[in-house]
Amino acid sequence: MPTCLVTGAAGFIGSNLVDRLLAGGHQVVGLDNFSTGQEHFLQAALASPEFRLERADLLDLSAVERAAAGADIVYHLAANADVRFGPDHPRRDLDQNAIATWNVLEAMRRQGVGRIAFSSTGSVYGEAKVIPTPEDCPFPVQTSLYGASKLAAEGLIQAYSEAFGIQAFIFRFVSILGRRYTHGHVFDFYKQLLEHPEKLRVLGNGKQRKSYLAVEDCVDAILLAVERAPDRVNILNLGAGEYCEVNDSIGWITGHLGLAPQLDYQGGDRGWIGDNPFIWLDCARMRSLGWQPRFSIREAVLQTLDYLQEERWLLQAR
Amino acid sequence: MPTCLVTGAAGFIGSNLVDRLLAGGHQVVGLDNFSTGQEHFLQAALASPEFRLERADLLDLSAVERAAAGADIVYHLAANADVRFGPDHPRRDLDQNAIATWNVLEAMRRQGVGRIAFSSTGSVYGEAKVIPTPEDCPFPVQTSLYGASKLAAEGLIQAYSEAFGIQAFIFRFVSILGRRYTHGHVFDFYKQLLEHPEKLRVLGNGKQRKSYLAVEDCVDAILLAVERAPDRVNILNLGAGEYCEVNDSIGWITGHLGLAPQLDYQGGDRGWIGDNPFIWLDCARMRSLGWQPRFSIREAVLQTLDYLQEERWLLQAR
Repeated sequence: MPTCLVTGAAGFIGSNLVDRLLAGGHQVVGLDNFSTGQEHFLQAALASPEFRLERADLLDLSAVERAAAGADIVYHLAANADVRFGPDHPRRDLDQNAIATWNVLEAMRRQGVGRIAFSSTGSVYGEAKVIPTPEDCPFPVQTSLYGASKLAAEGLIQAYSEAFGIQAFIFRFVSILGRRYTHGHVFDFYKQLLEHPEKLRVLGNGKQRKSYLAVEDCVDAILLAVERAPDRVNILNLGAGEYCEVNDSIGWITGHLGLAPQLDYQGGDRGWIGDNPFIWLDCARMRSLGWQPRFSIREAVLQTLDYLQEERWLLQAR
Repeated sequence: MPTCLVTGAAGFIGSNLVDRLLAGGHQVVGLDNFSTGQEHFLQAALASPEFRLERADLLDLSAVERAAAGADIVYHLAANADVRFGPDHPRRDLDQNAIATWNVLEAMRRQGVGRIAFSSTGSVYGEAKVIPTPEDCPFPVQTSLYGASKLAAEGLIQAYSEAFGIQAFIFRFVSILGRRYTHGHVFDFYKQLLEHPEKLRVLGNGKQRKSYLAVEDCVDAILLAVERAPDRVNILNLGAGEYCEVNDSIGWITGHLGLAPQLDYQGGDRGWIGDNPFIWLDCARMRSLGWQPRFSIREAVLQTLDYLQEERWLLQAR
């Protein structure tokens, strides 16, 4: 069984992936700087003799190189995953997404690691001109520092692949939902409704159309693609086959909680600078490998809400 | 007249642009770290009271911020412009193209500079699926560290434009030829033929098809676009309306020099890792602004050769 390095191992998607890799019999090295990761998410993993945790920052190249030694594949999930606050700290995305990815690639090159799976984002499509958006849509214009920094990382991976023969699996995610979810609209709405059940502040006009994916479906896709995708550089959209309006999600959440808050729309067709009012990815390429999502967006939203209700400590953890 | 900051002011395109801006009555601050720039190229500029030279490195943010103070527009031309040697020093493109561009943007934001013109490259198209390649061709895959780092810079510029209202002019150049040319195939071929006129080593099979542009036509286009392009983010291909084979250029060069060297092809359809065997850009968007190139590729190659024959010191300068 190959040895896997997972960066961002204590994060939302990373820790779910670690559990699945260990269940599949892999040896796993998990790397995290715990800037947003939660040690709690690695409880099961830490009990396994096949798991080793490295506390290190991806901006420390020699630490990354040590962690990569002996790995057959790197699942590079560590990131600044917060798309909204780019303009408040305009260097963060560059550091944590682009430069950190260069360090991962350079560590791989030095250690002879031949494969990388990378969590990119549908945000690289900016405001896509074709919806649902395929991977080879017209060359997009970036609208967020987050998207720009992930695009930079994609480009570096592709160039390293060409120059040094590394095989790459680049996944352009929609927003992921489910167990160990730590930020995003379900988090924000639930936290608000706990504090004041009678009122819900909504960014934008509520009509923004977004697609989501359950974390189990996301991890399924990553593992399947790494097994089956044939090219040296494989670029794969990952999202549900559908989209919903923010208002749909509000209805599911308030219905589930038995609340009828007054909705306080902030107005405009965007929630924040660089927000994309309509995200829906064409995932035919991923489906052609034999994958399909098991959960609807509604199911994924409600599972996330159930999870947050059980793990209310998370609402205070960041 | 606006005050202009030109980065890479002592470089090939930068120094040509500085001269044109000064001739047009602008005040110009030139910034260069002289890593590849030539003070000789700024001889005329340095005699002008409207020109100020700042010796600084773009990786020094506070120096860039000082240079940007009071500017109305930044012409950001400084770069590691060498596409061939990326794999030999895989960090250089990231530093000098992506991170340096972030510093320029951040300096602009802090100093309230509202416009940027940027020298990107047709290399961001990788191996384009549509030729001649328009700006909105299918989302490309990067094949060189140079292209990836320029794509990263483009994305950062676009994101800064969205977040902070900066107007951007992003030019995707083919290879530029002409006065003050300091590297590329004409340089390499002429240098070889001076050393041993009977033999010419040619990377690849000589059938690579490339497009070029004369530096005068390039500077014309930059100045016209900055005057006329209307959008917040303007992305413009810049190249001749034609392409040639490497073998065509060899014929023009050897004919001009009166030589008939034996051609020693290194073989393969690419000159180096990440080389693109067919580059030809669709420049309809730039033409729609009223621009057209004045020189053919053949004229540009021969002008470059004439220039290098007069300035043979340059062959030893790097």
